[in-house]
Order: sequence, then C-alpha cells, then structure tokens
Amino acid sequence: MNEEAAWAVARSEILFRNPHIEVRDETVAVPGEDRPRHWTVVGRKKAVVVAPVTVEGRFVLIHQARIPVRRWLWEFPAGQVDETKTPSPEQLRETVLRELAEEAGYELASEEGLTYLGHYFPSQGFTDEENHLFVARPVRKNELGFQPERAEVISQHKEFTQDELRSMIADSTIQDANTLALFARMVAWGIAR
Amino acid sequence: MNEEAAWAVARSEILFRNPHIEVRDETVAVPGEDRPRHWTVVGRKKAVVVAPVTVEGRFVLIHQARIPVRRWLWEFPAGQVDETKTPSPEQLRETVLRELAEEAGYELASEEGLTYLGHYFPSQGFTDEENHLFVARPVRKNELGFQPERAEVISQHKEFTQDELRSMIADSTIQDANTLALFARMVAWGIAR
Repeated sequence: MNEEAAWAVARSEILFRNPHIEVRDETVAVPGEDRPRHWTVVGRKKAVVVAPVTVEGRFVLIHQARIPVRRWLWEFPAGQVDETKTPSPEQLRETVLRELAEEAGYELASEEGLTYLGHYFPSQGFTDEENHLFVARPVRKNELGFQPERAEVISQHKEFTQDELRSMIADSTIQDANTLALFARMVAWGIAR
Repeated sequence: MNEEAAWAVARSEILFRNPHIEVRDETVAVPGEDRPRHWTVVGRKKAVVVAPVTVEGRFVLIHQARIPVRRWLWEFPAGQVDETKTPSPEQLRETVLRELAEEAGYELASEEGLTYLGHYFPSQGFTDEENHLFVARPVRKNELGFQPERAEVISQHKEFTQDELRSMIADSTIQDANTLALFARMVAWGIAR
C-alpha cells in the first residue's frame, strides 16, 4: 500500500506562489488519528544530491554561496529536478550526472558506478521537499571542467580524503543537510566511516 | 569577524507572512562576487534537535506524524525556539530539556550530560532555518511520561540500540534531516558508529 495515499487532504488552498515555492494552507487526515490537522505547507521541487568518490577514495565537494543562510558552504553537488514533481529513476539519474558535470566538472568512470541510497526530507515540519541521495564511484574529471549555471555561485571544487571529510563534519565546516544526510547513509551502508 | 555581516542586504521585501513562515524577496551582495544576487528566502524559527542516550547506550526516538510529507516518521525529539531569532546558549539548552520531557518523557540524569554538536542548515538553498544539534546522555525516564503539545501528533517513543539505529538509517526508515544530520555529527565525534 502507498502510505501517502492514506493521508486524505480535505482542503488545500494556495496562499502564495512563485517559480521557486508554493505556500499552501492544508487540512489533512492523519492515519490512526481522529482529528484532521490544519497546517502551512511549503511546496518545493524534488532534488538529488551526489557524493562523488574518486578511484583514490577521495570525496569531491564544491564551495557554494548560499544566499538564504549568508554563507559560503562546502557541500556535495546537488540540484533540483525541474521537469516534474514525481521524477522517475531515469530522471533522477540524469539530474545526478548533469549536476556532477556542471557543478564539479566530473563524470562517472563506469556506467555501473551510481548507487542509490534512498531519499530524505530536509525539513519535514514545514516543506514537502524530498531529496534523493546517490554515491557516484569512481568518478574522474571530465574534459570541460566545471560549468555552473549563471544563477548559482560556485567558486571551486576540491577532493577531500575520508579523514578530512570526517573532520569537516566534526568541526561544523560542513553545515548543510544534504551533505550530512548523505554522509549518514554512507556510514550506515559501510561506504564511509 | 562575523561572516554573515559581510553579506550586505540591498533589499528585503516581505511577500507573505503568517505565524509559521515569512517569504522574502531579497537582493544580497555575496562576498567575493561582483554581481548581487536576487533570491526568494523563506524565514523560519531556529530549532534544536536532541539525541537522548540511555545509560545502556540506547537511543530514544519518537514516532511523529509529519503533515507536509504525509508520513509517520521515527525521529530524534526536536522543537523550535519560539521567543527569539537569535537564541542564547541558555535558551537552546532550555528548549532541548523541554522537548526531551514533552516529546519523549525523558530527563537528563546528570546536569553535565548535554553536549553541543554545532548547528546545521536543513535547506540552505531556500530557507534561513538553522537547527542546533545536541546529545543528552545519560537520560532516564521522567515521572510524568511524555506529554506532547496538542498541535503535534506523536504516537509513541522507543529505545533503539546502536545497531538498530544504524539499520534504520541504512534502510531509509529514518528519513528526516534532523536525525540524519545528528547521526553524522555523532559519528564524526566518535559518539556513534
């Protein structure tokens, strides 16, 4: 059974919308609960996040300016799926390879090198945003170099060892949910430590 | 130097606001970049997340209905700091202890048992939301039992071993950024594996 289907939406009214987000006022039945709940929900596109790992076992991070939090952050490459709210596995895979090339300037060295580690919800208390986590290994530099979109501000990319990645997580140099969630899944899968 | 202060805000216009969120249209100067950036930013309260660990080394998770994503999720207790946008360490600590009691029915067994593992940003591409991560250990059940707020839907709490927690992360039973980010920090600190 599709768990989501049991959450009957009694009412969903759009309060605000622009090309990036949609704010909805919703009344939703919660399975197992008598009383329906009234909630403000922010709708956003689905996204992918990828941990690129080189043949030598190094992790590729990008350095990106993040306007909402006023910080330059070291993160794994990520990007939204623009075309649809319910992306197919192929669309997720294509988005991963596009972001890997555009944001970092890397490509898969082997067709079989992409592993799916499941989805996660960045902020389940207020947005329906859902990001899909991947590991790409091994990766190698492509011929074009990194070519970020003009809307994004990415200054550089760099390869980090396992120990460096772990230190950057411990000392809060790494501060974004995408990179932390993907690291957590990689640890649980035995891919990182 | 305060890094945030270098991000000069040329314009910030409120497009939508209710008691839960604030949508702003902003133009911001990025340090090191010539061209200012135009961005939609969703403002939200700061929050805390806590990993309660028992004397036996078990992790306490709660089972909570999350309206925006239409799921019942197993997560670490978490809660917003209501009073201010710039909480002090004392306010963060008080919020942690309040959520630990209300959402899980636990309390610190020792005053010195609270460790701060830094902050993280749940979705740095669109919201200024910032969550602060804590480990509470050892914890013990309090006398009241868990007493969630009426606005929230929490059905139960349960203690899980280290291996169970790791399995639930590997198989995507755990799907929220709070729990995954806190697990990542605990691993990097050597508190979990």
